[in-house]
Parts: sequence; C-alpha cells; structure tokens
Amino acid sequence: MPTLLHLDSSVFPAERSASRAVAETFVKTWRELHPGGDVRYRDLAADPVPHITAAAYTAGLTPATEHTPAQAAGLAARLALIEELEQADALLIGAPMYNYTIPSTLKTWLDSVILPGRTSGESRSADGLPTVVIASRGGSYAPGTPRHGFEFVQNYLRAVLGGGLGLEVEFIVPELTMAPKMAAMADLIPLYERSRERAFEEAVSRAKALAERVAA
Amino acid sequence: MPTLLHLDSSVFPAERSASRAVAETFVKTWRELHPGGDVRYRDLAADPVPHITAAAYTAGLTPATEHTPAQAAGLAARLALIEELEQADALLIGAPMYNYTIPSTLKTWLDSVILPGRTSGESRSADGLPTVVIASRGGSYAPGTPRHGFEFVQNYLRAVLGGGLGLEVEFIVPELTMAPKMAAMADLIPLYERSRERAFEEAVSRAKALAERVAA
Repeated sequence: MPTLLHLDSSVFPAERSASRAVAETFVKTWRELHPGGDVRYRDLAADPVPHITAAAYTAGLTPATEHTPAQAAGLAARLALIEELEQADALLIGAPMYNYTIPSTLKTWLDSVILPGRTSGESRSADGLPTVVIASRGGSYAPGTPRHGFEFVQNYLRAVLGGGLGLEVEFIVPELTMAPKMAAMADLIPLYERSRERAFEEAVSRAKALAERVAA
Repeated sequence: MPTLLHLDSSVFPAERSASRAVAETFVKTWRELHPGGDVRYRDLAADPVPHITAAAYTAGLTPATEHTPAQAAGLAARLALIEELEQADALLIGAPMYNYTIPSTLKTWLDSVILPGRTSGESRSADGLPTVVIASRGGSYAPGTPRHGFEFVQNYLRAVLGGGLGLEVEFIVPELTMAPKMAAMADLIPLYERSRERAFEEAVSRAKALAERVAA
C-alpha cells in the first residue's frame, strides 16, 4: 500500500492556518482512496529537526570509517529523515510564507535531507517523487502584482526540491490570508475567499489524481 | 562612539569558513578606526535565536494589555534583538549559502526582528542602516553561470533587508569556496583564490568607508 509523507510547518493550529487546513483536506481525500495506506506525519513547528551542525554536514562528505562520534550521530539523524523521504510514494508539504520565504523549521528539514551522493547529485534517491506544496501566504505575490519580486517560497522550493532533489513539485497557493484580519485589506476579502475555495478544491482533485497515479 | 552589530551564521570556525574569516577582517579594520567603539557580536550558529512561535508572532499584532504570558515573553525576546539592531550604526552579517539560501539560524533572527509597525511598515526604525553581508558560497551563482537561477541569498536578503527593513545593503561574495576540497572543481581553484583575495580587500575597503561615514 502506498505511503504519503506529510510535513507541516505553520506555527498556527489548523483553524488559523491555511496551509494546515488545506493539507488536512488533501490527507482526508487521500485516506478515503487508500484506507489501508500509511500516512507518515511530521509537524516541523511542534517538533523541529535541529539546525544542521558542522559535524552533521561534514559527515555526509567523509567516509564512515573516519567519523567522530558527533559525525556518526549527526549523520544517523539525517539518514532517518532521508529514509522516511525515500520510502514515501508521495510528499505533501505545508509551507506558509514567513517574511517572504519558507519557515526556518522547513529549512532545517531541507538541510538534513539534502545529502550529496544520496538525495542530490547524479543519482538522486527520491528522483521523480510526486510532491504537492501548500504555499499559503498573507498577501498576493502572483506575477503582475507589486510584491511579485518578494516571492521566495515557490521560486526557492522549485529550485531546491525540483532542481536539487529531482522531486516533481506542484503548488497549491491559498493567498491573501491576512485579508480578513487587516482593515487595510478589507477590499481583498472576496479575492481571498475565492483563493481559499480554489485551494480546497485543488487539494481534493490533486489528492485524487495522485492517489490514482500511485496506485497504478 | 559608533556601534557595529556583527552576526555570524556559518556552522564552521573561521579557519574553515569564508564568511567568518572575511567578517573578521572587516571587524579588525573597523576596530582600528574606532578603537573606542562598541562591537556587539552574535554567533547565531553557536547560540541560535529560537524559531518564531505563534505567541511571539501574534504578540506583535495585538495590544500589550491583551497579551498572554507566552506572548509577553515572546515579544520581550524579540524586542531585545530589535533594540540591538536599532542601536547599531552599522550591521555586518556573515551569510554563507546552504542549499541555495541562507542558514536556518539567520532566518530565525530575521523572523524575530521583523516586526510590523516597528522595524517594517511605514516608519521603519532601522531605515537606512548601512549593512554589509558576506555572502560566501561553495560554487558560483553569478549572472551568466549555469547556477544563477539557484541563487537565493543575495536575491532574498536584498528583498527582506532592503525592501522589508529599509537597510542599505551591500554584498561581499567570496565564491567557489568548495574548489580546493572537491576534485571535480580543481580547475576552478585560481578563480576561487582570486575571489577570496578580492573579498578580503573589499572587507578592508568597505570597513574603512563605513567607519568614516559613520564617524562623519
């Protein structure tokens, strides 16, 4: 049975987090189609992966027989996360925009799983993994908007997950999520509502498409 | 006397870190010109600022009289970092590229100091602060190179420090730092050496220019 790896990184609970709420809908749809399947869940905000250390970093670049105890421990922790990624048939990431880019807790996960010679480089162990990113954001950063040049979530994740790890990345983008909370954004509430509705619809349709593809 | 705030974020000590070594040269030059000045130092790798929490985030958006104890504590920690930034006459940041973008420990500092209504928004408390970023990187990501589209250090910091906080940002970019360590990059060693030499020269010249400007 297929395995979905689901990562969340919002600091808020689902009732206040678009990325968590949309991801929940994706997972619910997926489970209905794969009732016997496994969903591995990792809440990076509640239980963050440690910042990369010099020992954990260099351990990936030196032979195991030469490792110090700190290198061996650092690499073992990274390999546990890497195996979790490699064993997944699909990957779902909740990635809210904080200060124009991804949460620091999603970066620590990336720094752990990107290992030259294993997950990155010539033969990449998670190459082609179907991946859906819920890239929620408080404003709009779409092409043509004034803030387009401040978008470092999709741009960055396309480069690092797609170009770096070889994952097949699609995005669902619930945006303008601050509109109901900020008086200055009141005019944008209808656009926010439409974006939110579309995000939930896309979560259902992509979960179905992915569940079918993985089962095939 | 002027105050320099110096942040490092490399996981390596100065003898193995271009960003730390170049920053050290900057600081040494600065101290010679301002022997009575204050250099505040923060090693974000050794002593990271915590990941932003829901309480610390929302505390910045709600009136102090309504704060929970967690919000009050979270905001107090952020304000201590913000005051350190506001009291600086110049800012120096060591920002090595890890997996195409900044270290997770530099992101946690940014998430703490970016506070709407104080450091960002209409009147920004650190507006115009002269800032030098040592953006070291293992390869080359310069315009025209194959990896240019994978550069999310300068692009991102220009947006968040310049566009967001209003700092006046300049970069020093020691690059190809992996060349002496990787057999496949051996041909690039002369370019690496030239880049390194230029970075140290720039550290001296920018430290002098900034020290003069701040004293004026």
